[in-house]
Amino acid sequence: MTDRFELHPQLAKDTHPVGQTDLCEVLLSRDARYPWLILVPRQAGLREMHDMSNADQMRLMTDITHISKAMQKVWQADKVNVAALGNMVPQLHIHIIMRYRDDAAWPGPIWGVGAAQHYSDAALTDALTRAASCLP
Amino acid sequence: MTDRFELHPQLAKDTHPVGQTDLCEVLLSRDARYPWLILVPRQAGLREMHDMSNADQMRLMTDITHISKAMQKVWQADKVNVAALGNMVPQLHIHIIMRYRDDAAWPGPIWGVGAAQHYSDAALTDALTRAASCLP
Repeated sequence: MTDRFELHPQLAKDTHPVGQTDLCEVLLSRDARYPWLILVPRQAGLREMHDMSNADQMRLMTDITHISKAMQKVWQADKVNVAALGNMVPQLHIHIIMRYRDDAAWPGPIWGVGAAQHYSDAALTDALTRAASCLP
Repeated sequence: MTDRFELHPQLAKDTHPVGQTDLCEVLLSRDARYPWLILVPRQAGLREMHDMSNADQMRLMTDITHISKAMQKVWQADKVNVAALGNMVPQLHIHIIMRYRDDAAWPGPIWGVGAAQHYSDAALTDALTRAASCLP
């Protein structure tokens, strides 16, 4: 048995790496329909935010709000959606999704609506550059 | 123009009041399919978590994780879903929803799945009692 953190293979498959904060891996969703980052605290065995120490919960909130605010500005989004769900992938991960009044799922949540769209190479480069600029 | 906090009428319509934390109103969703609380910081004009002061963001995270942990124990839930969406109701509010492997929407998110079910009087009394026991 190992306690070493490893990114869940489904999260690795569904995302492109962006970078790190002191606490989290930061990933870009491969679905080009929404500017969408995913934060994954680098601690083995986490399922819920309340599994973390109080100090790490505070660090996580700081990461979430810093990145949310920066993304909303960089992508000029109408609304930010933040969610820790994890029903399918049990490793704790937090979605930060930029929403627009004319996006594919507005005003509903994005999950279960239509099919993911692939990034073009140019759009992916642009999204990764913008995403990196949002890290603390 | 007033800066006084008032609960958004749609949130009032969709919930039963449970109580307060130092920061938030705590509401029980009227949908009996899921143990589901909603936290609403009592500050006028909030739309995003990053609109709050850093100190209040920390207080909000403390409320979220305290209540999440308590609810998971009280309701013996398989998973906790936490989400700040707000696409339809612009007033900042945070959903804390207990999930079960045999619930109506598992493993997807709950939004947009089926129709809400009303609480019976007895079940509502039980849920409100349990919910109140989860407050800090």
